Amino acid sequence: MRQAGRYLPEYRAIRSKVGFLELCKTPDLAAEVTIQPVTRLGVDAAILFSDILVVSEAMGMALELEDKGPHFPEPLRSHADVDRLRVPDPEQALGFVLETIRAAKKRLAGTVPLIGFCGGPWTLAAYMIEGKTSRSFEKAKAALLGDEPLAFALLSKISDALIAYLQAQIDAGADALQIFDSWAGALAPDDYARIGAPYIARVVRGLRRNGQPLTVFGVETGELLHILAGTGADMVGVDWRVPLSKARQRTGEAVALQGNLDPASLFLPQPILEERVRRVLAEARAAGPGHVFNLGHGILPTTPPENAKLVVDLVHRETSHA
Amino acid sequence: MRQAGRYLPEYRAIRSKVGFLELCKTPDLAAEVTIQPVTRLGVDAAILFSDILVVSEAMGMALELEDKGPHFPEPLRSHADVDRLRVPDPEQALGFVLETIRAAKKRLAGTVPLIGFCGGPWTLAAYMIEGKTSRSFEKAKAALLGDEPLAFALLSKISDALIAYLQAQIDAGADALQIFDSWAGALAPDDYARIGAPYIARVVRGLRRNGQPLTVFGVETGELLHILAGTGADMVGVDWRVPLSKARQRTGEAVALQGNLDPASLFLPQPILEERVRRVLAEARAAGPGHVFNLGHGILPTTPPENAKLVVDLVHRETSHA
Repeated sequence: MRQAGRYLPEYRAIRSKVGFLELCKTPDLAAEVTIQPVTRLGVDAAILFSDILVVSEAMGMALELEDKGPHFPEPLRSHADVDRLRVPDPEQALGFVLETIRAAKKRLAGTVPLIGFCGGPWTLAAYMIEGKTSRSFEKAKAALLGDEPLAFALLSKISDALIAYLQAQIDAGADALQIFDSWAGALAPDDYARIGAPYIARVVRGLRRNGQPLTVFGVETGELLHILAGTGADMVGVDWRVPLSKARQRTGEAVALQGNLDPASLFLPQPILEERVRRVLAEARAAGPGHVFNLGHGILPTTPPENAKLVVDLVHRETSHA
Repeated sequence: MRQAGRYLPEYRAIRSKVGFLELCKTPDLAAEVTIQPVTRLGVDAAILFSDILVVSEAMGMALELEDKGPHFPEPLRSHADVDRLRVPDPEQALGFVLETIRAAKKRLAGTVPLIGFCGGPWTLAAYMIEGKTSRSFEKAKAALLGDEPLAFALLSKISDALIAYLQAQIDAGADALQIFDSWAGALAPDDYARIGAPYIARVVRGLRRNGQPLTVFGVETGELLHILAGTGADMVGVDWRVPLSKARQRTGEAVALQGNLDPASLFLPQPILEERVRRVLAEARAAGPGHVFNLGHGILPTTPPENAKLVVDLVHRETSHA
């Protein structure tokens, strides 16, 4: 959930003037923030600046963003609460995101692709039931694993909202898509196979894509990789806990792998950081077809920008002959 | 780190009168809290009521316990900070823990064994460098993976303190031991093999045990199970993310497995909870020799005590014929 550019001074300069949610809803500024990492670091793609929870807000939930993170003051409590949620028209309810995509595409002018995104249905549902971030998710699990009709109603509605939302992102110009099922790893494999993966598959099936590749990402997903590989996604994100060789054994060869440098590596002395980047690239080569170099999770807020730049440059040097 | 009895009303009654650290340091009350889950639930063992960080305090670090969790106001910053730490004499610096063990043993009067414990060297070192809990551990990783002499000095000193501490627990009457390397899963396997497991192995080797079994436990350790199984521990804890059958493939047959019910399962409707308990027991039987039923992580603070009792009774019924 840590956006690509949030650790950059030029991002902080903008954020010193506008709140986070206001920034998400101001397309011109959001587009500027979207391309900041491309300008500063020379990364190979831009990722939309937004938040996964704006969809939940568009579905009818009040959303507050405080210093300690986003927060739904009235979390879902009942079937009636779920019934009241709507599947929003993205142009109407989430037009600011689509405007951001159009504005960012214009600024990028074809230099690098733009990645659109959304949260995974389980992750969004968990947020909407817990009301805020959690480590243990007992409320969300009790509701979604203990009440099958409620789980089906809520996860289906979220999935349908996400289909319309991602489709609108494609139509607005997104060149690739990523589904952040950030909390996938909180579920045991049997449970993720029931209330996580089927709804990602539903979203993937529901999209009319014209070659836009789709990535599914989570952390602590070591035991879920084979399930994630079966959702119809083209690429599966791998966190740093799982060596890419093992990840490949679990996903099979039908998907590409994304990852998996530990974000904390960016705080190591540069020679050690370089060695770790090279190790990921070597593992990726050995693990077989299809790899996009990335961190295994979001970049940390206090990351030194010069170390991020070092990683981008090194990956470019090491892979330019391929 | 969520102690066995912290969700019980009789625990809260005591805590309404004394602070957490004060309770740890008042042997008579700590012993009472230690045996509460045995009295209420009929569990097969008591676990010492204490905190892993009292060792760090005894090593010379100021420790504060606030509502938001324990906190070292002066975290380790330099080699000189590490040099200043001492390997304490447990009778002198941690006598209150040993007194608690003696008092709890007296009250238990041989009915069930008493488990002593400590934190893992990596987990304690990470806490002492970060100063508080973390999700990303960039300071601890930068120090311990980026400065090998510092890592060796700090982790060795902690290990030596833990050897003396666990030995004193054995001498005071602990019937079994558990090392909580709670943050093991934050490290990639290569890193855990460098700064995690070797120091657990050092602690295990350093103890003179007279049959007291030793368990090593962490969460998000799916990719570390083979490493944990090689530390010399008799039993390895498994969180709910890894099915016991897969855990067994990774550990081999030389260790017993502990786990692995999702603590959030205790919030499910009772028939579903029962089915999940039976599934863990069936998986454990299939996974082969040696299993201790337990949750995959600490019990959650709002757990309904009647559901904890249901689990204990069901496990007793289902395994009494074995």
